[in-house]
Amino acid sequence: MDQTKFILNEKDMPTAWYNILPDLPEPLPAVLHPGTGKPIGPDDMAPLFPMDIIMQEFSPQQYIDIPEEVQNVYRLWRPTMLYRARRLEKALDTPARIFYKYEGTSPAGSHKPNTAVAQAYYNKKAGIKRLATETGAGQWGSSLAFACALFGIELKVYMVKVSYQQKPYRRIMMETWGAKCVPSPSQDTNAGRGILAKDPDSSGSLGIAISEAIEDAVTSKDTKYSIGSVANHVLLHQTVIGQESMKQMEMAGFYPDIIVGCVGGGSNFGGMFLPFVKDKIKGKRKDLRIICVEPASCPSLTKGAYCYDFGDTAGMTPLFKMHTLGHTFMPPPVHAGGLRYHGMAPIICHLYQMGLVEARAVPQVATFEAGITFARTEGFVSAPETNHAIRVAIDEALKCRETGQAKTILIAHSGHGHFDMAAYDQYLSGQLTDYEYPEEKVKEALAGLPKVG
Amino acid sequence: MDQTKFILNEKDMPTAWYNILPDLPEPLPAVLHPGTGKPIGPDDMAPLFPMDIIMQEFSPQQYIDIPEEVQNVYRLWRPTMLYRARRLEKALDTPARIFYKYEGTSPAGSHKPNTAVAQAYYNKKAGIKRLATETGAGQWGSSLAFACALFGIELKVYMVKVSYQQKPYRRIMMETWGAKCVPSPSQDTNAGRGILAKDPDSSGSLGIAISEAIEDAVTSKDTKYSIGSVANHVLLHQTVIGQESMKQMEMAGFYPDIIVGCVGGGSNFGGMFLPFVKDKIKGKRKDLRIICVEPASCPSLTKGAYCYDFGDTAGMTPLFKMHTLGHTFMPPPVHAGGLRYHGMAPIICHLYQMGLVEARAVPQVATFEAGITFARTEGFVSAPETNHAIRVAIDEALKCRETGQAKTILIAHSGHGHFDMAAYDQYLSGQLTDYEYPEEKVKEALAGLPKVG
Repeated sequence: MDQTKFILNEKDMPTAWYNILPDLPEPLPAVLHPGTGKPIGPDDMAPLFPMDIIMQEFSPQQYIDIPEEVQNVYRLWRPTMLYRARRLEKALDTPARIFYKYEGTSPAGSHKPNTAVAQAYYNKKAGIKRLATETGAGQWGSSLAFACALFGIELKVYMVKVSYQQKPYRRIMMETWGAKCVPSPSQDTNAGRGILAKDPDSSGSLGIAISEAIEDAVTSKDTKYSIGSVANHVLLHQTVIGQESMKQMEMAGFYPDIIVGCVGGGSNFGGMFLPFVKDKIKGKRKDLRIICVEPASCPSLTKGAYCYDFGDTAGMTPLFKMHTLGHTFMPPPVHAGGLRYHGMAPIICHLYQMGLVEARAVPQVATFEAGITFARTEGFVSAPETNHAIRVAIDEALKCRETGQAKTILIAHSGHGHFDMAAYDQYLSGQLTDYEYPEEKVKEALAGLPKVG
Repeated sequence: MDQTKFILNEKDMPTAWYNILPDLPEPLPAVLHPGTGKPIGPDDMAPLFPMDIIMQEFSPQQYIDIPEEVQNVYRLWRPTMLYRARRLEKALDTPARIFYKYEGTSPAGSHKPNTAVAQAYYNKKAGIKRLATETGAGQWGSSLAFACALFGIELKVYMVKVSYQQKPYRRIMMETWGAKCVPSPSQDTNAGRGILAKDPDSSGSLGIAISEAIEDAVTSKDTKYSIGSVANHVLLHQTVIGQESMKQMEMAGFYPDIIVGCVGGGSNFGGMFLPFVKDKIKGKRKDLRIICVEPASCPSLTKGAYCYDFGDTAGMTPLFKMHTLGHTFMPPPVHAGGLRYHGMAPIICHLYQMGLVEARAVPQVATFEAGITFARTEGFVSAPETNHAIRVAIDEALKCRETGQAKTILIAHSGHGHFDMAAYDQYLSGQLTDYEYPEEKVKEALAGLPKVG
């Protein structure tokens, strides 16, 4: 019998998150205050986050204990499965060994609850009664709604209006868990009212939704803000993925030659590869390749500038040193909503600059082709974001068929596509298209960046 | 640390299905030929099913080995988790111990692939190139599409037209796995054309779809028919659920006092309780209570007649001795599409007649109320069908709060509700209603039953 999956017991679940900060060969560039141009400190972030989370953002500790209350919720779906994709290997007729770590079994269907649960817990512990956040297509909003339901915290989600109207199912899921969800721009904030006064028909953007959520958090009683990707603490919480995968790859008897994952803000793939990149930094696995996959139409790592920029469109956040297409850049409407972000997690950009990870941009149609191959061999219908990782894994496996090399490829499988069937329908009916890389728009957005750092 | 879930390794997965037939205190009533009124034999079923499946339908063997090829596919999601619902217990403030066996992690999201995979395998083994089946809301059709993709079998699904139009996502899921799906009634069969000639706007019914699928199977080359519930062999394949649960309850250190599950055709709950009911038959667990939960608007066990009836609306199947509301009865449009069936698995009816299982009918709104409580405590958003089981589990746990008894309750959790969010939306917005039990319509349908047996 060939083993299909590698199962960890609850007692093998990681009890600490891995923090890459002290292991970085060079320190991460400071986050700057947009007004002063000087590095920000914990106090600057206090209106937005509880202190436990702020301390994690800057922590010099290599491992940070996962509170028992958080582990208790993780146990609903963690440890997750690591699969050997034998049917996919066979269909590709490749000597490569393909593995995938599957995060689709969480109640919200993706990796997002790994940090949502931690953030809800620390806010609860700090006496916070209510959270505000933004969401695009709804993956993050629904994950935080799930976490808030379990910890008894109120949640208000500002959901980009076009998604609120076109994709009602994620919104209903948030409401099922008890969250309040409004279309953004809304009448509930100054930021929202201001936009609507100028443009009553505004269909919203993630940037506007962030502005509304931040305003809500800083102006409402007992309320904080919560973010689903990009920040150091979010990547930290996601390292349960990579730590479990390391144990499971050991059970399987292989160490990966190549790890692939999709990157939007970077938290899913960061959570997977950070424990592995440590081996590379320490010189134990010099040949390990880590490939970040992004959409060809929103290629922040492969085409963006490496400079200081805002995290949101409206310019309400501090300035982060990152690969960016410019915070005013509006990415084309690819179905992988989670990858439509102008910037990238500073930790990932830093590692990319040092040559410790690489990046590849892939066009949309080819990612769905890969997703279909995966569904018809491995069974699981994957999220459009995940299909980006699967595309590159298949490409690398096909190269192995040419060269005859039996490489070991590990895919960070971020979640299922149950709420993305309309995108599959477009692909299957031949209506899905690729988008050109909008070079001129990126140039324009980059020209407007603040001159700091 | 309180354990949240009980995890079996692949080597603990059952290697044989449990067949209740030889353990029944009295033999199951024969299936009759509608023309002759005489018992049918294997040869009568040969146009529809491969011989391996037909032999399972009548097998006197207590255990039937699960072929290695089927086990290999099961391993994609099996063994499934058994959970202790500690948060639900706490929210109900009950001394009861509540467990649930969760089948929602299969690629199709429910228990249905347990039999779909077996059926696809046996057809492949018999040289069958193509299958035809019917589906209502799409749970069964998508599960068989998944199974056929993995075994390289063509599949045509006749999907009830009203669902095909209103619920496109399950249809797209079938197509993602490579199946062809048409709205029924279709122009592709005599049965479909006949209906359309009389009523071009027919919105279809499960009965019509079955007629089309059977006609397709018996008139097409290398094609057989496949059924998703009711039949003995379907319940047989589902016993992996109950066998795993027995081992996991042992790990947890408890034997259930009460097992609850929803019943439409009966295969999900049969798969759970058949290995347990054996203990009751053998006198080892006389006090075990097994509660079949059905919709108050389609109550075949609690209000139906126990007599011979057709399995489909059009009267193309043999006659089964079962609890039935009459094969021409059209159930009200409750959201639990999987429970809208006029009959019930003959095995379950037989056990019900002998007093080995009991039945309870619950109204729709109360089931969604239970589903919301479950989602906000245990995290998982459940299918409307499953919410019926959760409703009764909660009711029993609340009784324990009154009496102070610490009973052990086991829920057969058949799947997630990711494709049923519109139903949750209706509930949350106060638009969901209950349906009266349509007594007059049932009387009418029962009056037209064939006089045999």
